Amino acid sequence: MAQEDPSWKIFFEENPKPAHFDENVKLVQDFCQQAAMKKNRVALITSGGTTVPLEQNTVRFIDNFSAGTRGSASAEYFLEAGYQVIFLHRSKSLEPYFRHLVGRNIFDMIEVLPDSVTVGKKHQAELGKLAEKFQRQRCNLLMISFNTLSDYLWLLRATAQKMQILGPLALLYLAAAVSDFYIPASQMPCHKIQSSGGPLSLSLQLVPKMLAPLVTLWAPNAFIISFKLETNETLLETKSKESLLKYHHHVVIGNLLHSRKVYVALVDSNSPSAEEIRLSNSDVESGIEIESKIIENLKTRHDQYYANHKTGTITGTVLGKQVGAEKWIVVTVVP
Amino acid sequence: MAQEDPSWKIFFEENPKPAHFDENVKLVQDFCQQAAMKKNRVALITSGGTTVPLEQNTVRFIDNFSAGTRGSASAEYFLEAGYQVIFLHRSKSLEPYFRHLVGRNIFDMIEVLPDSVTVGKKHQAELGKLAEKFQRQRCNLLMISFNTLSDYLWLLRATAQKMQILGPLALLYLAAAVSDFYIPASQMPCHKIQSSGGPLSLSLQLVPKMLAPLVTLWAPNAFIISFKLETNETLLETKSKESLLKYHHHVVIGNLLHSRKVYVALVDSNSPSAEEIRLSNSDVESGIEIESKIIENLKTRHDQYYANHKTGTITGTVLGKQVGAEKWIVVTVVP
Repeated sequence: MAQEDPSWKIFFEENPKPAHFDENVKLVQDFCQQAAMKKNRVALITSGGTTVPLEQNTVRFIDNFSAGTRGSASAEYFLEAGYQVIFLHRSKSLEPYFRHLVGRNIFDMIEVLPDSVTVGKKHQAELGKLAEKFQRQRCNLLMISFNTLSDYLWLLRATAQKMQILGPLALLYLAAAVSDFYIPASQMPCHKIQSSGGPLSLSLQLVPKMLAPLVTLWAPNAFIISFKLETNETLLETKSKESLLKYHHHVVIGNLLHSRKVYVALVDSNSPSAEEIRLSNSDVESGIEIESKIIENLKTRHDQYYANHKTGTITGTVLGKQVGAEKWIVVTVVP
Repeated sequence: MAQEDPSWKIFFEENPKPAHFDENVKLVQDFCQQAAMKKNRVALITSGGTTVPLEQNTVRFIDNFSAGTRGSASAEYFLEAGYQVIFLHRSKSLEPYFRHLVGRNIFDMIEVLPDSVTVGKKHQAELGKLAEKFQRQRCNLLMISFNTLSDYLWLLRATAQKMQILGPLALLYLAAAVSDFYIPASQMPCHKIQSSGGPLSLSLQLVPKMLAPLVTLWAPNAFIISFKLETNETLLETKSKESLLKYHHHVVIGNLLHSRKVYVALVDSNSPSAEEIRLSNSDVESGIEIESKIIENLKTRHDQYYANHKTGTITGTVLGKQVGAEKWIVVTVVP
């Protein structure tokens, strides 16, 4: 009897690839190949929330709370730590370097003189420094954007697969706030839901857990960090550990909605208790961002992982083969 | 037997006012009083989509598709037409003047020289012009932001009420994409909905139609324009006319999701058929925005309305008194 496809496979069959998919994958491929030749480390950072459309001609959608603060700040610290960065982010969410200007009045920074337009004296230092940092890092930074859950998952899979060429030099930092629920395309109304129809009942399906094929199939040699965002403190450590036990990746960073800028707990499978990172009031006052400490910590862990990784240089492709219902064997083919 | 409160009243009882509400209302009040003294016209423009939280500690929410393109462009044309503008917009949606820089790489416009930071030669004309326009209009523009449906409705009501001092000099241009459905606070779970609970069923209530009290009670003398966005062309004109018949305001602007940048249909109660505004390909190529034509058209209609308005200068407050189940009498009290 033929075995049923796993639910993640069915998801990709039912949800078509996004616009500009092939162009984006080509950009990722070129970026990774060049990094691999130079033996550079590459961090894939996912950032921002995904949307789940409620209509095929989308007027309404369900969104996850995420401005992209964590992801965009982390991208800067990974770049400063010597990584090249693929920044897979929600369109219009915060971006590295540009984030410092969001909500600022740019017209107040500009001075219109009779014969020229310039940057006002008191903004020159800040704008100059940001512009320089961005210019210095721009060729180390590949920006790819998504809107919907389905766009995101297509791009995540393809990016992880293209990063296989980097072997253990690849790091995946999954900071995007990905929806747990969605409405399958086949169950979506074509046009805008009319309010004259009265109260609305929505039935949402569970999104297949993509971390399973990501860890075993799409990125079997990468160092993988996922996030767990909760609002209820009592659930945080348990849920972080559960996730690690279930998916066998490397680090889960637990954080709470209301304290996420000053507190995180890093859980791995080697230590019985979480490693906490906490900003003091004086850290916060002096402008230190928790992401600087998170990335410092992860870089050390990635060093260790890289040193321990026994597969050597990966020059072939990696294949996955499903055995039984839950178990995967990863085969590395070196041509 | 005591009569039941109308549903909009219950909504305000059940949903508390947003943060900084009183400060914002004070800003609106001062702005309107100063405009009224100068007999200036004031346009309230609502812009962007509202969110409907699914949890009290909000991680997930339902959103309406709207970047604020229509509202932010319209604000500029109202300002250029001599209006003062209250721009009630979704936080982080597009804003007048600033919208032209969204998605642009500001660091590429800046030149870092050895002893100064300036604007690059080829961006000086554009940035200088925008900065000048913004500087010239900044005291005619009051920006107030919202996130949730409830924030929006609280601010809409209070702003409309404070604009009463302007009588028929006030214009309301309701371009925000307001949710038709919401989850009452009492039915919302406190914490993040767990995916381990399996598929998710949501039950959403209808949002009370606020256009009814807005037209009759909160802004009885203002010139009021609402929008109807549809994805299905066959419904557009019927639904626009229905809205006008139901609420007795002045203009409904019908538009379709996929052609909204080049086509709108203005419906009023005096003409049997809609007045269409359409951009030609050459209009689009030469950078003309449809909002410039919409605002030109509305200004003429508002002139007419103002000339016909018989109440004279409103110096008192307006009270509403419910009679029967559906009918309202508006009493203008001149002290």
